[in-house]
Amino acid sequence: LKHRIVRNVPSLDPAIAAGLRAVGVATAHEAQGRSGLMDAVLRPVVPEAEVAGRAITVLVPAGDNWMIQAAVELCVPGDVLVVATISPCTDGMIGEMLAVSLRARGVVGVVIDAGCRDVRALRRMGFPIWSRAISAQGTVKASPGSINVPVVCAGVRVHPGDAVIADDDGVVVVPRAEAAAVLAASQARVAREDMLREKFARGEPSPSFEASRERLAATGIVWIDREEGDD
Amino acid sequence: LKHRIVRNVPSLDPAIAAGLRAVGVATAHEAQGRSGLMDAVLRPVVPEAEVAGRAITVLVPAGDNWMIQAAVELCVPGDVLVVATISPCTDGMIGEMLAVSLRARGVVGVVIDAGCRDVRALRRMGFPIWSRAISAQGTVKASPGSINVPVVCAGVRVHPGDAVIADDDGVVVVPRAEAAAVLAASQARVAREDMLREKFARGEPSPSFEASRERLAATGIVWIDREEGDD
Amino acid sequence: LKHRIVRNVPSLDPAIAAGLRAVGVATAHEAQGRSGLMDAVLRPVVPEAEVAGRAITVLVPAGDNWMIQAAVELCVPGDVLVVATISPCTDGMIGEMLAVSLRARGVVGVVIDAGCRDVRALRRMGFPIWSRAISAQGTVKASPGSINVPVVCAGVRVHPGDAVIADDDGVVVVPRAEAAAVLAASQARVAREDMLREKFARGEPSPSFEASRERLAATGIVWIDREEGDD
Amino acid sequence: LKHRIVRNVPSLDPAIAAGLRAVGVATAHEAQGRSGLMDAVLRPVVPEAEVAGRAITVLVPAGDNWMIQAAVELCVPGDVLVVATISPCTDGMIGEMLAVSLRARGVVGVVIDAGCRDVRALRRMGFPIWSRAISAQGTVKASPGSINVPVVCAGVRVHPGDAVIADDDGVVVVPRAEAAAVLAASQARVAREDMLREKFARGEPSPSFEASRERLAATGIVWIDREEGDD
Amino acid sequence: LKHRIVRNVPSLDPAIAAGLRAVGVATAHEAQGRSGLMDAVLRPVVPEAEVAGRAITVLVPAGDNWMIQAAVELCVPGDVLVVATISPCTDGMIGEMLAVSLRARGVVGVVIDAGCRDVRALRRMGFPIWSRAISAQGTVKASPGSINVPVVCAGVRVHPGDAVIADDDGVVVVPRAEAAAVLAASQARVAREDMLREKFARGEPSPSFEASRERLAATGIVWIDREEGDD
Amino acid sequence: LKHRIVRNVPSLDPAIAAGLRAVGVATAHEAQGRSGLMDAVLRPVVPEAEVAGRAITVLVPAGDNWMIQAAVELCVPGDVLVVATISPCTDGMIGEMLAVSLRARGVVGVVIDAGCRDVRALRRMGFPIWSRAISAQGTVKASPGSINVPVVCAGVRVHPGDAVIADDDGVVVVPRAEAAAVLAASQARVAREDMLREKFARGEPSPSFEASRERLAATGIVWIDREEGDD
Repeated sequence: LKHRIVRNVPSLDPAIAAGLRAVGVATAHEAQGRSGLMDAVLRPVVPEAEVAGRAITVLVPAGDNWMIQAAVELCVPGDVLVVATISPCTDGMIGEMLAVSLRARGVVGVVIDAGCRDVRALRRMGFPIWSRAISAQGTVKASPGSINVPVVCAGVRVHPGDAVIADDDGVVVVPRAEAAAVLAASQARVAREDMLREKFARGEPSPSFEASRERLAATGIVWIDREEGDD
Repeated sequence: LKHRIVRNVPSLDPAIAAGLRAVGVATAHEAQGRSGLMDAVLRPVVPEAEVAGRAITVLVPAGDNWMIQAAVELCVPGDVLVVATISPCTDGMIGEMLAVSLRARGVVGVVIDAGCRDVRALRRMGFPIWSRAISAQGTVKASPGSINVPVVCAGVRVHPGDAVIADDDGVVVVPRAEAAAVLAASQARVAREDMLREKFARGEPSPSFEASRERLAATGIVWIDREEGDD
Repeated sequence: LKHRIVRNVPSLDPAIAAGLRAVGVATAHEAQGRSGLMDAVLRPVVPEAEVAGRAITVLVPAGDNWMIQAAVELCVPGDVLVVATISPCTDGMIGEMLAVSLRARGVVGVVIDAGCRDVRALRRMGFPIWSRAISAQGTVKASPGSINVPVVCAGVRVHPGDAVIADDDGVVVVPRAEAAAVLAASQARVAREDMLREKFARGEPSPSFEASRERLAATGIVWIDREEGDD
Repeated sequence: LKHRIVRNVPSLDPAIAAGLRAVGVATAHEAQGRSGLMDAVLRPVVPEAEVAGRAITVLVPAGDNWMIQAAVELCVPGDVLVVATISPCTDGMIGEMLAVSLRARGVVGVVIDAGCRDVRALRRMGFPIWSRAISAQGTVKASPGSINVPVVCAGVRVHPGDAVIADDDGVVVVPRAEAAAVLAASQARVAREDMLREKFARGEPSPSFEASRERLAATGIVWIDREEGDD
Repeated sequence: LKHRIVRNVPSLDPAIAAGLRAVGVATAHEAQGRSGLMDAVLRPVVPEAEVAGRAITVLVPAGDNWMIQAAVELCVPGDVLVVATISPCTDGMIGEMLAVSLRARGVVGVVIDAGCRDVRALRRMGFPIWSRAISAQGTVKASPGSINVPVVCAGVRVHPGDAVIADDDGVVVVPRAEAAAVLAASQARVAREDMLREKFARGEPSPSFEASRERLAATGIVWIDREEGDD
Repeated sequence: LKHRIVRNVPSLDPAIAAGLRAVGVATAHEAQGRSGLMDAVLRPVVPEAEVAGRAITVLVPAGDNWMIQAAVELCVPGDVLVVATISPCTDGMIGEMLAVSLRARGVVGVVIDAGCRDVRALRRMGFPIWSRAISAQGTVKASPGSINVPVVCAGVRVHPGDAVIADDDGVVVVPRAEAAAVLAASQARVAREDMLREKFARGEPSPSFEASRERLAATGIVWIDREEGDD
């Protein structure tokens, strides 16, 4: 199992990326059958950020960000850097300097199952990172890892070239081959939610709940009226 | 132990709710003898939100939000939905669609010992939720739970009809029968704190600390002056 | 091991404090050889706050804030109160009233390995606290602790008189004897980062990474081009 | 809300206690409709211990075990001491000395949502404790709490006089009024499991699963045969 | 993304399984380049258990063990059941009854990123489970999942047919195609460790450390002799 | 802040070490005023182990055990190796090979604020380790740390040469200068507990509680008799 750096990641149609960014994490997650959602421990450092792009994957040893440095030159505009660690780590593996370099390459955001730092600078730059921790702890550049190999990041398998969507709800991965279909299903879902939102705002009941009333009664649940003196 | 849905929850005087909202969580918690505070793991999703209202309680299985749907029609203006789970869960059990429905019913906020999602939409709506997690993970509508039974939510017993106060400091539950007395005690406390705040801002010492000096000395504590060369 | 309250903490040059505040936590942490960083569990309650000052240390029993009260009168302008607990605690040991008193004494911020409360008031005041938790839970004034003894706070040894820097990246402690040297090294680091930031923004590669290419190749890592059909 | 010490807790039929101890936590929890199970963070300190008895409840401040001392004289043979804390705590609130006193009173075990210590002595004595932590940290005797009031311990409401069962699977609380019915339902469940165990040991399929096959197919799930070359 | 149940998982050579069991988790993990190790949160319920076998994978919704029931009939002697959840869950998804059924099918152990129960019975049976929690909490049989699809379990990608090794050190997954090579490398490692163990037991220094002394000196590290009066 | 390896750690009287081992962690912790107790997250890997000895301290980067290797030759019989990490880490930094080497040097145990592995071998050897985690994850030998400098391990300051006691209750550090006095105070405490244990076993009340009854009544606590029908 040699460590390796892989070039020539398949590209992701920018229109699909833009579409996935617009529908957002929760909708795309539903639209692809509730799979691909990273662990909720990853939180956005820059509030209200919303990104979607092609995954460039990095696998790093705990406490070592050498491979993140090495990954910079493999990125092109629209990419999302996805950093997984070989073992658990909360060190601040990425900060302002790397963010400036990544932005210069057109990277739209970073998802890292470890820590980040320089968060005030990141917020000023508006360079979004989703991380497990905020920590000023620096890291070494001593041991190799891999770039653009399939990784597991925050509980989700990510292949280089997959679509990654991240916003205030978290991070979801859409396999490249399914990105177009997931976008279409997401947009259908958005349309339905637009319609429902209006109904719900008027106080109308949920059609799906109405349809389930019989099934609910069949569970044996009972409706009772509270009496005076009940607990 | 059949699951059940209970109607006719006793109402809460809106003036008391408004009063409790104004005094806030920390003060009411003190005023009722430091009881009723939910676990600090519940955090507000909408910054600066402050609510108080009558508890409508929901008990749901992990990963299943059917009962939250079912609870919508039992809510009236001023209510706070309190959702407890039968076993630990961080799924996003409530999101924008349910929030729109709940707001249409006049619900002022949700307290949930699980996750929520669509947080950007919630922030735009200004619909406040206090939750254990933010997660896009969807849930099923397959198994029954109960509505308006006494529950334990985030470590606190809640009866339907109790007063629930939530703000940036967390969530506190005031038993219905004690709500008026707790409000009165809270307001007295606010008045005393207004007076103390002014004194403290002028640099005056704390009367309670001054009164404790003798007791402190009696513990055997020593006051010493650091010498040059001490550690 | 008697509990004790120590007076006459050595002062910290305000110019050094101001300089350390300007360079920030991440830079000072690097500049002093990556030591002194508190556990990332401490988070700022007031966003964007940045402080540096002389440490006044307090050691308190879990659930008891008597010693924080006692510490107020030992503070002078520019101090940072550092509160460690004898055993783990998340109670809200400090809130608005103590914050008003501390501000009246010129204290610039509080670092506490426990909880704080009244966070809305703290944000309105702009009085910054870094804490392990936000909790409305009140505390007693029953058992003694110590003031201005060396403590371990969030994993870091702090002596009274040390410099403490806190910002959105966390909290770092600089031993008093090294404060001037760490400031100088930090400022050199800032200057280098200013130069690098410009280069990186233009898309230039990292000199340190360029210098490491040979070493990277020597690890046996391989560069490969992805073929069609690869996973 | 005065703190209080309540005497005259209703007794629990020793035959019911013995029966509940024999069926164990998992079975009783199922038999009462999957309620009353304490958080899994409580773990047994003495391996293989199995107890059931009447709950004597204690509510203590964090870091203060005065009320546990005070509770000793309220215990009679067969009791289980249930200790809840007012705020989170992992201190070693109970150790060998209290265990010796409690055993002299006939107490069969302790359930505590905090820490315990002297675990080697506890294991030698065979005095079982279920706790959140093992910690040598001592506690003070400074602030009051309450004895034999309803408490929430590890997420479950406990009234003095309820039946508490604890074994390697955790801790479950059975309301006093339901103890006889839960025991009967548990024993029926044990009988059914004895029958099933024999069938399963012979390799026979689960009747409940067989009965669900049609329902499973109706979910749309597909059975497929893996082909050579599939992932 | 339909849920599916896949039959015809490729078999694993029993000699390889036996070999991997003998070398153990730590050695196999090293031998395959430190990959495939599940999160340390999975702990063995039966002490000293050591198993290795072919992975049968199960993906279940939180709080629902229907698919574990369904997986029983797909198991053959030597298999290890690997259960991943769609979202985080600590419920006791597997207990004595399922263990008896699985043992009747020849299953040698279970790895589950959720909870298990009936641990005393499991210990008596000697049926080993590695789980995230011990919890008596029961689960429903309401929603589908998948069997024998690739899953991520405790941070590691597992394909049906992979080799799974589990012992007191944790759980490691060896891809099926690499199992023979990893076994060979592991055995070489065992032989070398046998030799080293003997040397180390005689007090001889580590050859690898001796070989690194020059490199260590080159880091700039200094060897100094403590003087009287040093801290 | 150069990394350094310090020789000539002051020795610890073996009779004091033996005495501290006999009194154990909980007693010594009390005897020295409840200080020096490491975080309860450190747990013993070898059950029933009890050790005390001179601290040899090691400070290592996360994921790197080079310095543990380097520390072996600095150990002499009776030592306890205390390993702190520069940032949080759960990797298995120490296993059977290092344990064999350390035992050959006479080291009696290891305290490590990270993970260990090969736990079955460690149990067979009876070589005790107190660690934060059990993990098969291997570590590199790439970056320097320090040996025999003061460290903070699991929340406690440790100087090389301090006495470290570890048993089933956890780990406590006794400063070298206080070791004799703490031992004497511990032994007095043991004698008193022997006397108390006998009294308590006979059912006699606690003298300290009896002495506190008046103080308890003064808190305003009330004793009441439960009436029929009370909750």
